[in-house]
Amino acid sequence: MTLAPPPAARVGDTLASVATPSLTLDLDAFDANLAAMSAFAARHGVALRPHAKAHKSSEIAKRQIEAGAVGVCCQKLSEAYPFAAAGIASIHVSNEFVGADKLAMAVELASHVRLSVCVDALPQVRALGEAAARAGVTIDVLPEIDAGQHRCGVTSEDALLALVDGIAAQNALRLAGIQAYHGGIQHVADWSARKTEAQRAADIAARYVRALDARGVRCAIVTGGGTGTVEFDAASGVFTELQPGSYLFMDGDYGGIGWSGELRWRHSLFVLSTVMSATRPGMAVCDAGLKGLAVDSGLPRSAHWLDASIEAALTYVSANDEHGMLQAQHAPDDDFARLVGQRLLLPPGHCDPTVNLYDEYVCYRGERVTDIWPIDARGLSR
Amino acid sequence: MTLAPPPAARVGDTLASVATPSLTLDLDAFDANLAAMSAFAARHGVALRPHAKAHKSSEIAKRQIEAGAVGVCCQKLSEAYPFAAAGIASIHVSNEFVGADKLAMAVELASHVRLSVCVDALPQVRALGEAAARAGVTIDVLPEIDAGQHRCGVTSEDALLALVDGIAAQNALRLAGIQAYHGGIQHVADWSARKTEAQRAADIAARYVRALDARGVRCAIVTGGGTGTVEFDAASGVFTELQPGSYLFMDGDYGGIGWSGELRWRHSLFVLSTVMSATRPGMAVCDAGLKGLAVDSGLPRSAHWLDASIEAALTYVSANDEHGMLQAQHAPDDDFARLVGQRLLLPPGHCDPTVNLYDEYVCYRGERVTDIWPIDARGLSR
Repeated sequence: MTLAPPPAARVGDTLASVATPSLTLDLDAFDANLAAMSAFAARHGVALRPHAKAHKSSEIAKRQIEAGAVGVCCQKLSEAYPFAAAGIASIHVSNEFVGADKLAMAVELASHVRLSVCVDALPQVRALGEAAARAGVTIDVLPEIDAGQHRCGVTSEDALLALVDGIAAQNALRLAGIQAYHGGIQHVADWSARKTEAQRAADIAARYVRALDARGVRCAIVTGGGTGTVEFDAASGVFTELQPGSYLFMDGDYGGIGWSGELRWRHSLFVLSTVMSATRPGMAVCDAGLKGLAVDSGLPRSAHWLDASIEAALTYVSANDEHGMLQAQHAPDDDFARLVGQRLLLPPGHCDPTVNLYDEYVCYRGERVTDIWPIDARGLSR
Repeated sequence: MTLAPPPAARVGDTLASVATPSLTLDLDAFDANLAAMSAFAARHGVALRPHAKAHKSSEIAKRQIEAGAVGVCCQKLSEAYPFAAAGIASIHVSNEFVGADKLAMAVELASHVRLSVCVDALPQVRALGEAAARAGVTIDVLPEIDAGQHRCGVTSEDALLALVDGIAAQNALRLAGIQAYHGGIQHVADWSARKTEAQRAADIAARYVRALDARGVRCAIVTGGGTGTVEFDAASGVFTELQPGSYLFMDGDYGGIGWSGELRWRHSLFVLSTVMSATRPGMAVCDAGLKGLAVDSGLPRSAHWLDASIEAALTYVSANDEHGMLQAQHAPDDDFARLVGQRLLLPPGHCDPTVNLYDEYVCYRGERVTDIWPIDARGLSR
C-alpha cells in the first residue's frame, strides 16, 4: 500500500476546497497576458522567446509557442530538459556554464533541439566546440555582452571579437548573434527612468553590433529584454528577440513599478492560503510562509479574501518557515477567531523563486479548478 | 526514449565532479552533530523529538531514531507522509491546521503512526475529534500555548482549560501534554540574553502546567525548544521533550550566534557551486542564486574554495535567480579569469528553506561521495 498525501486539487473543485498552500493560476488573467505579449511582439516585428525560468512548465511553454513564440529561454541546461522532452524545438540557454557535467548536457540537448547558448570566455568556447564535434552536433552560440548589469558578459569589443574568432575556429559551433540582457533595470520604478536606462543598454548592444559589422560579421540575433523593458527594447531598433518571463504572472515587484506605455499586465499568480490560527486580537496566522512564498523581493503586498464578503483587511507582515503573520486593520476583535479557516489569495513578491517551490499550478477560471499543470522544471538549477 | 537530466552525482564521485549547484552534506560533521544532540538529551533525561522540517528526509529521520530520538516533529500534515511511509512510528505535527483536506490527512496518518497534533481553538478540537471518531482512530492532542512568540497558541489559562475540556469531550482524542515553542528567541545572538529569554518562555509554560495540575490534569509532555535554546530548555525542569532541527546542519543564522555552553555544532550543509563567469576584475559569478540558496536570513557568510590551494578570498554579495555575485578581496586581477570553473562550498544563511529547494543530499566524507539521500518531504507544505 502506498502512503502519500492526497492531491491538492482535482479538476472541477472550487478554490474553497483546494488544499493549502497551493500555487494557483487565474487563467483568464494568464490568457490575457499571454495574448498581449504575443500581439505586442508581432506588432513590433520582433521575435518573442519567453523566459521559461519564470514558469518552469512545459504546458505553459507549449501555449507560448502556439501563441507565436519562436522558442523559449532557459537559464540552466538541466532546466531545458523537460521542455525538450515536451517537444519545444528551439531552446536558448541564456547563461554561461562550465564543466564536464554541463558540456554533456549541452551536447545531449543539441541532439534533440535547436540549442543556443551564451559564452563570455574563450576556454568555454573551445571546450564547447570540442564536445559538440565529438558528439556530432551543432550548437548556436551567442556571446553575451555586458549591457550595464556588470554580471556576466564581455566588457569590450576586442573581447567579443576574440570570442567570434574562437567560435569560427570550431566547426561544431555557429555564431547566431549576441545576448544583451540587463536584469538590473527591469524593476526601475519610474517608467521614464526605466526607458532611459533601457535606451542606454540598447546603445551598448548597438556598439557591439557595429563592431561585428566592421569585421564583416553579420549579427542576425540580438536577444535580451525582460518584462520591465520590452516595450523600449522592441522600439530600440537594436533587439531582434525579446526574453520576457514574468509578464504571464506579474508579482509584487513588477506590480509596484510604473506602467505608462502601451503594456499593462494582470496579476494571475496567487498563493492560496488558509488562516489556521487567530488567538490574539488584530493578528491572524496563515499557512503560507517561507516555504510557500519567496520573500527575496518582499512579502505579499496585498491579501485578498477568497470569500469577498469578509471585510477584515489584512496585511502580511512577516514570514516564518510555514507561518505567515497577518495584521488586521479593521476587524472587530470579537470577530477575529471567526477568520480561522478562511482563505486568502496572496500575490507573491517575486514570481520566479515562488514558482520554484511548487510542483504544480492549480489553474482556475472564476472559482472553479479547470486544469492542473505540472511545474516539470522545478528545482532544475544545474 | 526518456530525456531527463543526468544524476547530479553518483556514489564514488569526488566533489570536484558533482554537478552544481548541489546540496552537499559533510557526513563527518553531520554524524558529530547527530551524536552530540542525542548524548545531550540522554544526559539531561529529556526526550528528543527532532524537527524533520529542517531536513525533510526519511533517511535522516531513521538515523535520528536509531540514535535515540522518540520520534520526529513535522510542521505540516503532508510533510509527515514520507516519514510515516518510511516507518517512523511516532510523529508530532507541531502546528495548527484547519479544513476538510487537513482532517482527512490527519486521520489517514493516525491509522499508520502514533500521531499527535497541536490545537489552539475549540472548533478545531471538535472537528478533529469528530473526524477521528468517524475514522476509528485515536489522535494525541497537545494544545499549544503562546510562550512569548505571539504567533499561535492560547494566551490564557482559561483558554487552555477550555481546550482540555473540549478534548476530554472527544472519545477519539487524548490529551498528551502541551506545546510551548518560542521560535523568536532561537537566534538571540548573546548567549546569556538567550538564556534569560528561554527561562522566561519556560516560566510561561510552567504557569500553564500548574493550571492543569490545579485542575487535576496531568501534563505528561511539555514539548518545544529549538537548536538555539535546547540547553536551557533541558535544564529548565519544565520541558520533557525537545524539538531541535537545525543542529544537524547549522547555517549562517545559527552560526552567527553565541555558543558559550556545553553545546557546539559543526557546519555540515553546503551548497556546492561553480564559478561560471568572471569577466570583470574583482568579481566572479557562481551558479547558485535565489533558486539554490534561501536568502531570507541573509546571504552565505563565507565561501570556501573546494580546491584549498586557491588563495583568492571571496564574499558572496548578492543573489539573482540563478547567479551568485562574488567580490574578491585579494585576487590579482590578471588571475581572475582563471577562477572560472573553480568550485565553492557555500554555507546557506538559513538551512530549512534551502533544503526545501533540493531533491537530494549529496553526502560525502573527505571529498568522496558516499551516499545520495532523497529529500522526500521536499515541497510538502500542506
